[in-house]
Amino acid sequence: MTRILLTGFEPFGGEDINPSWAAVSLLADDPGVTAVLLDCTFDSAAKQLLAAVERTDPDLVVCVGQAGGTVGIELERVAVNLDDARIPDNAGRQPVDEPIEPSGPAAYFSSLPVKECVAAVRAAGLPASVSNSAGTYVCNHIAYTLAHLIATERPTLRGGFVHVPYAPQQVPSGNQPSMAVTDAANGLRAVVAAALA
Amino acid sequence: MTRILLTGFEPFGGEDINPSWAAVSLLADDPGVTAVLLDCTFDSAAKQLLAAVERTDPDLVVCVGQAGGTVGIELERVAVNLDDARIPDNAGRQPVDEPIEPSGPAAYFSSLPVKECVAAVRAAGLPASVSNSAGTYVCNHIAYTLAHLIATERPTLRGGFVHVPYAPQQVPSGNQPSMAVTDAANGLRAVVAAALA
Amino acid sequence: MTRILLTGFEPFGGEDINPSWAAVSLLADDPGVTAVLLDCTFDSAAKQLLAAVERTDPDLVVCVGQAGGTVGIELERVAVNLDDARIPDNAGRQPVDEPIEPSGPAAYFSSLPVKECVAAVRAAGLPASVSNSAGTYVCNHIAYTLAHLIATERPTLRGGFVHVPYAPQQVPSGNQPSMAVTDAANGLRAVVAAALA
Amino acid sequence: MTRILLTGFEPFGGEDINPSWAAVSLLADDPGVTAVLLDCTFDSAAKQLLAAVERTDPDLVVCVGQAGGTVGIELERVAVNLDDARIPDNAGRQPVDEPIEPSGPAAYFSSLPVKECVAAVRAAGLPASVSNSAGTYVCNHIAYTLAHLIATERPTLRGGFVHVPYAPQQVPSGNQPSMAVTDAANGLRAVVAAALA
Repeated sequence: MTRILLTGFEPFGGEDINPSWAAVSLLADDPGVTAVLLDCTFDSAAKQLLAAVERTDPDLVVCVGQAGGTVGIELERVAVNLDDARIPDNAGRQPVDEPIEPSGPAAYFSSLPVKECVAAVRAAGLPASVSNSAGTYVCNHIAYTLAHLIATERPTLRGGFVHVPYAPQQVPSGNQPSMAVTDAANGLRAVVAAALA
Repeated sequence: MTRILLTGFEPFGGEDINPSWAAVSLLADDPGVTAVLLDCTFDSAAKQLLAAVERTDPDLVVCVGQAGGTVGIELERVAVNLDDARIPDNAGRQPVDEPIEPSGPAAYFSSLPVKECVAAVRAAGLPASVSNSAGTYVCNHIAYTLAHLIATERPTLRGGFVHVPYAPQQVPSGNQPSMAVTDAANGLRAVVAAALA
Repeated sequence: MTRILLTGFEPFGGEDINPSWAAVSLLADDPGVTAVLLDCTFDSAAKQLLAAVERTDPDLVVCVGQAGGTVGIELERVAVNLDDARIPDNAGRQPVDEPIEPSGPAAYFSSLPVKECVAAVRAAGLPASVSNSAGTYVCNHIAYTLAHLIATERPTLRGGFVHVPYAPQQVPSGNQPSMAVTDAANGLRAVVAAALA
Repeated sequence: MTRILLTGFEPFGGEDINPSWAAVSLLADDPGVTAVLLDCTFDSAAKQLLAAVERTDPDLVVCVGQAGGTVGIELERVAVNLDDARIPDNAGRQPVDEPIEPSGPAAYFSSLPVKECVAAVRAAGLPASVSNSAGTYVCNHIAYTLAHLIATERPTLRGGFVHVPYAPQQVPSGNQPSMAVTDAANGLRAVVAAALA
């Protein structure tokens, strides 16, 4: 059976939930899926991701994070070699203008078929788009770490990063867009299916 | 049993669905509810609303419409005596700067407890806010028509207008916010409960 | 000579400037113009406006306020009989759901030719639109006070309310739109010219 | 004297003006500045840029483009090796998912001190931010071309890409943010000063 590793993050920035893990955990019992919760920290999250890849030896890895302010599922096309945090992570660390891999390239492109994934999410009736920046916080750190692993050690692994919007309960005053967590989960299912096709 | 009249609109502006009717129709079997579909036309919709009130003699009327670009459930606080259409309605009529009721007041306030309704929607984990303008298209036309009916003929009727965001499938490219139709329906349930409390 | 009364507000909400007064004061030496600075308080501002009308006996009154988050000059079409403040005014007063004039109507329409004013601003190369809500803070309070004065005591006076965006220096991080104060002033000149035409 | 090459683009996408060239041309007579207009085409623009660098042998190059929908001056931190056009360029060419330099790296970081530049623009009273994506259209093509030139042939040259918002006259209906062209020009002056400091 195809082995699929999905990761989501714990809440950060004072939030009670993180829709990335809320959605990923809904896929935990899907065939072939291992769902792993990552700390929202620069130091631990990468180690947890690498350990999970080692442990599960997956064919596909999709790491998922929260992108507050976005409207749909965003397929990240680029991961940059840069940590530049606007707020401290959950361990209190706030790197500014630091490379993730001092000897690594400035960026990697995702090895997911991002446009096919976008089309699949839209075909499921949900908003989606390709994004050219995953920011410079823990999400991008994980996206770059995964791409660097693929480039340097696991050339047959396919993987990438996906951002999901806020969950509705995170924006009670209606000043930011959101997506139902069940919709985010269905969007991720479409991403996985397209990535495996 | 308390009688509740809910209305939603047919699609307009080239859309395939209208989330107002999609959500209202999910409440059609709730206790006491009559759900009525309105044309998206200045002329017919008001007649259909008035006929439905006549027919069902409700205790509460909540008319619902689509507000593209909004993020949450919006409780409309004001209805103005003005038709000013940016696009033609579904019958091809496009009134510009016309009063709805030539002898009516400039505006009515909603007779719904709008802030209690907002609080109830938020307590259900969904975004909501009070809005001070329902626009000047068919939605406001219906909001004003209902308020004028209450003011002039049915002083004990409680009623108002609520806007819901686009459904996710209306915004595939993710350039506008949306709300799952089941969430919109649950938000409307919270509005109804708060209005009856 | 035609007498024109223009008002702008002092800063509020922790800001250092209010673009409404910054722009209005650039018109202070225009022919026929009296420019008056209003407190950003529910109680004083209306008194200051009424005193200025009494003192200058104007043919035209344009009251101007700041609308954070907007992109262009907004011609307010409706003023509602409601004070509902999200934050305290500069005197520390925060009315909630209070009528402005207990015996007044729910709303007034502006006596400015709002669409002609919008067209004039756009012809000057600047963004403009008609707005159907001036909110429920001090701006709307002044808009309603002016409209009520016109309706009850000065039927030949023409007047209304205009919102201007943030000035650029108020949004250094670029998270909200803004308009150069000289552009806002030129937009107001176009509004005045159209209102007098 | 320090030699500064500034470039702006001709209009595209049906617009009458391009604020990048409108602003850059206001700096054409500043000391040391050569201002060059680029075609908005994937093929010609890069050639024009490289020829201008050859001709003027600059110490600093700042290429400027229009970013519709943005609020402030955006200092682009990353240029990616990808042409992916949503609309045809002014020569009718619309590359999809093509590398700019087949043997080049996935991305380059700007050699401008982007945060110092942002601080300088803000100190001038104008909105500014660091951006992590210059898109995948002609702007990014030029940003990557410049960075590749610096990396491969002109290691002492400092240069990067800056986006400016729409000019006010491009958004008459006020549905998108804008910046006065004189403000954009002053923002670019602050960028140049910070880049040379």
